[in-house]
Amino acid sequence: MAVLTLKQIADQLGGEAVGPAELPIAGASSYESAGESDLTFADSPRLLPAAEQSRAAAVIVPREIESSRKPIIRIDNPRLAFARALELLHPRPRPQPGIHPTAVVGAGVEIGPGAYVGPYVVIGDGVKLGSGVEVHALTYVGDAAEVGDDTLVHPRVCICHHVTIGKRCVIHSGSVIGADGFGFVRGGDGTCVKVPQVGTIIIEDDVEIGANCAIDRATTDATIIGRGTKFDNLVQVGHNVRIGRNCMIVAQVGISGSVDIGDAVVLAGQVGVADHVTIGDGAMVGAQAGVTKDVPARTAVSGFPARPHRQQLRVEASLQKLPEAVTELRALRRRVEELEQRLKQG
Amino acid sequence: MAVLTLKQIADQLGGEAVGPAELPIAGASSYESAGESDLTFADSPRLLPAAEQSRAAAVIVPREIESSRKPIIRIDNPRLAFARALELLHPRPRPQPGIHPTAVVGAGVEIGPGAYVGPYVVIGDGVKLGSGVEVHALTYVGDAAEVGDDTLVHPRVCICHHVTIGKRCVIHSGSVIGADGFGFVRGGDGTCVKVPQVGTIIIEDDVEIGANCAIDRATTDATIIGRGTKFDNLVQVGHNVRIGRNCMIVAQVGISGSVDIGDAVVLAGQVGVADHVTIGDGAMVGAQAGVTKDVPARTAVSGFPARPHRQQLRVEASLQKLPEAVTELRALRRRVEELEQRLKQG
Amino acid sequence: MAVLTLKQIADQLGGEAVGPAELPIAGASSYESAGESDLTFADSPRLLPAAEQSRAAAVIVPREIESSRKPIIRIDNPRLAFARALELLHPRPRPQPGIHPTAVVGAGVEIGPGAYVGPYVVIGDGVKLGSGVEVHALTYVGDAAEVGDDTLVHPRVCICHHVTIGKRCVIHSGSVIGADGFGFVRGGDGTCVKVPQVGTIIIEDDVEIGANCAIDRATTDATIIGRGTKFDNLVQVGHNVRIGRNCMIVAQVGISGSVDIGDAVVLAGQVGVADHVTIGDGAMVGAQAGVTKDVPARTAVSGFPARPHRQQLRVEASLQKLPEAVTELRALRRRVEELEQRLKQG
Repeated sequence: MAVLTLKQIADQLGGEAVGPAELPIAGASSYESAGESDLTFADSPRLLPAAEQSRAAAVIVPREIESSRKPIIRIDNPRLAFARALELLHPRPRPQPGIHPTAVVGAGVEIGPGAYVGPYVVIGDGVKLGSGVEVHALTYVGDAAEVGDDTLVHPRVCICHHVTIGKRCVIHSGSVIGADGFGFVRGGDGTCVKVPQVGTIIIEDDVEIGANCAIDRATTDATIIGRGTKFDNLVQVGHNVRIGRNCMIVAQVGISGSVDIGDAVVLAGQVGVADHVTIGDGAMVGAQAGVTKDVPARTAVSGFPARPHRQQLRVEASLQKLPEAVTELRALRRRVEELEQRLKQG
Repeated sequence: MAVLTLKQIADQLGGEAVGPAELPIAGASSYESAGESDLTFADSPRLLPAAEQSRAAAVIVPREIESSRKPIIRIDNPRLAFARALELLHPRPRPQPGIHPTAVVGAGVEIGPGAYVGPYVVIGDGVKLGSGVEVHALTYVGDAAEVGDDTLVHPRVCICHHVTIGKRCVIHSGSVIGADGFGFVRGGDGTCVKVPQVGTIIIEDDVEIGANCAIDRATTDATIIGRGTKFDNLVQVGHNVRIGRNCMIVAQVGISGSVDIGDAVVLAGQVGVADHVTIGDGAMVGAQAGVTKDVPARTAVSGFPARPHRQQLRVEASLQKLPEAVTELRALRRRVEELEQRLKQG
Repeated sequence: MAVLTLKQIADQLGGEAVGPAELPIAGASSYESAGESDLTFADSPRLLPAAEQSRAAAVIVPREIESSRKPIIRIDNPRLAFARALELLHPRPRPQPGIHPTAVVGAGVEIGPGAYVGPYVVIGDGVKLGSGVEVHALTYVGDAAEVGDDTLVHPRVCICHHVTIGKRCVIHSGSVIGADGFGFVRGGDGTCVKVPQVGTIIIEDDVEIGANCAIDRATTDATIIGRGTKFDNLVQVGHNVRIGRNCMIVAQVGISGSVDIGDAVVLAGQVGVADHVTIGDGAMVGAQAGVTKDVPARTAVSGFPARPHRQQLRVEASLQKLPEAVTELRALRRRVEELEQRLKQG
């Protein structure tokens, strides 16, 4: 934890401090739990009163707010500024660079300056770790894998052979990057014959992979995760998938083989995507949806099978009324029969 | 495995043995697979005949059963008693206390009496392990983490820095307790800017976490898992979630950020809960349900989006009839049109 | 990578080479990404033109194709042959047999000839590893576990005590074989009392388990995975499950306790199966389906709750029309009311 003044923080964030410039700020927190030396934020004027009534020392606010009962920092995007303030006030402790004496390092390994390799890390032959890379305890890095500058690999990760990871990535604990894709052919006798998975994975720069994910190598070629894309935990990515840039893939999503996902796509929690489907740039897929066919760019889909979100909402609303509708239908049939009878008699 | 007599077991369980007191019992098993020296159980009189016909040496039965063709132990809750008998007859082998010479232990670590630290365990600085704690092989415990007395940490677990785990907990292999929550803010250029996750996790006493779960630390403050709550495998818990006491969270459940779950809640397998939702005490959520809004205490919900379980059952029943209903509706419209025509003509 | 001639490959696959027998082949790939020395394949005559236009050196084709603009290998099952060609051309590098000096090996361990035990592997007492077994880095093998000949255990796996794994199996990184089943009984005070899980797991020959799966040991007896069955990643298998032979269990499937699955069953991605359900031989369950009751052999089911697949397709089709149907129903009721009024008046 660092202690900074209100003005120091405002200057570093590119905002304007209104209040005592030398006010010491020791942390950042949501307004519900802010302590007396914490900075908090209000996304909009509507949320300011709650922040003002909190114990926080100061509040990051949108530019449109000019003054407050508390010291403030006026800025364009308070939520983004809060994220940066958290980083300033709670800088991540970095380990002392160096290779722990217990690390097992293969032949022909290149390790850049400032890199850290923790205890009981196992590194195969021909691996390249860039400068400033951190590979934490009990992680395995297979032969010929490459990890770009300043990438952070948390403890107990598995980066399989020949996988390439870009710069400034973060890989959380338990994730397996590069296990075999699920490729089998039924033989004549009903047994499943393995299709060797001889491709690899390319993870571009600034990607974050959550905990306990499984990202499979390609059968041939490469599974690709585009620059700036972020994964939550327990996500499954099949072989030969291509994911574009700046996507957000929420927890427990499952992406089948050969799926092609554009840029800035959001897949909400527990979504499943069938194999060979294409999802266009900027598309959004609602939680638990099952995507069985292509999704056009900049559309929102949900439900199973996934359909346009507005249509799905109408389906859900009518489902609520379905039991009554079925009863009503039966009643209506009887009334129609009666009418028919009467007309026949008449 | 231990060998005990019928009477010894009955006494320890607080039940009454009917049959030869000295009958040796060497194990406990379901009636289907019980061997000749095994104890089994019958939850109700209806299930007694199957247990009587099994090879089992003796049967745990409810008090209302007074005699049987087999030796019995009469007791209030046979299922609970069977669980305890399993523990008596198959006591878990405990490792010899001590710190394995290959463990890497940081500075300022406190380890209580009787604790076990296995091979290739990595323990950070300032960690506290209570008395009788077992931390098995290849586990990582981050800086300043605390593990309470008699907690069992299976091999290959990851307990991240500053996480607090209570007494008598069990953490199964592969679980990651304290990876970063999934917090990102979209910057102006479409990139996702990380919100540093500087909070922690508090796991209270008597919690069990299954294998390969991922429980995220809070953005600020703490993710909290209440006393006595049990998790199955592959469960996802987002940042700032609060879960109450004695809940049962079944496999592959996904709980989004800032969800608030009361006491004694049951989430069945593959349930998803949207962020900021509140689930009241004693609520039950059916398998694969998607909870999108608050669930009142002591109610049961299911389906997607989750609705009261009885209503969902009615919806499911009508869905079965839906294709016919749509056809019927079309036919009815034609009949009404015909009636309208005839009345017009008439 | 190996380099073979067209004829050598054809001979080893049991096919017929048409073209220059000595043509060197250095790799195998899909036609989209094949390089100039790669072999590719066309499953059917319809797909041949694309393969012919690719950069590939040669194409594996069905017997019915007699000639092509490219050198070909004629064979009965091109896809299966391609899988085998991948294996010939990209043979998996095998580690030098032997036990790494950092491996911690318990008492009374038997290790067969040609076996490999990697760095920082921890092996408990009484473990048996067959000949040619590979146990890669950072893996844990518990007391009395057995691993059959030529089984490949990838890095960072957890094989718990007393688990038996057959011959020629593959276990991918991060999987936990033999954590406790999720067995608890509610005590009178609302707490969940653990039912000790004292059973085990038997994995038969030729099984493949994907990355980060969790397969639980039985309460008593054994969880059984039948010969030749293949698991994708992040699959959950509860206690006392029995799975037959040659099944394909796709990613993120969850199988509850005591489920009984026949031979050659396919469970697609994210399927959930409720406890004690039986699924017959050759059944297929569609992606994300929730199986709540028995599935007869050789049937296909899908949806939630799972119903016969054709019926589910009809339900899905009618759901599309549901919002309009509800509106229509309302309109029809008004028309019937009007008719009734007019008849009353008339």
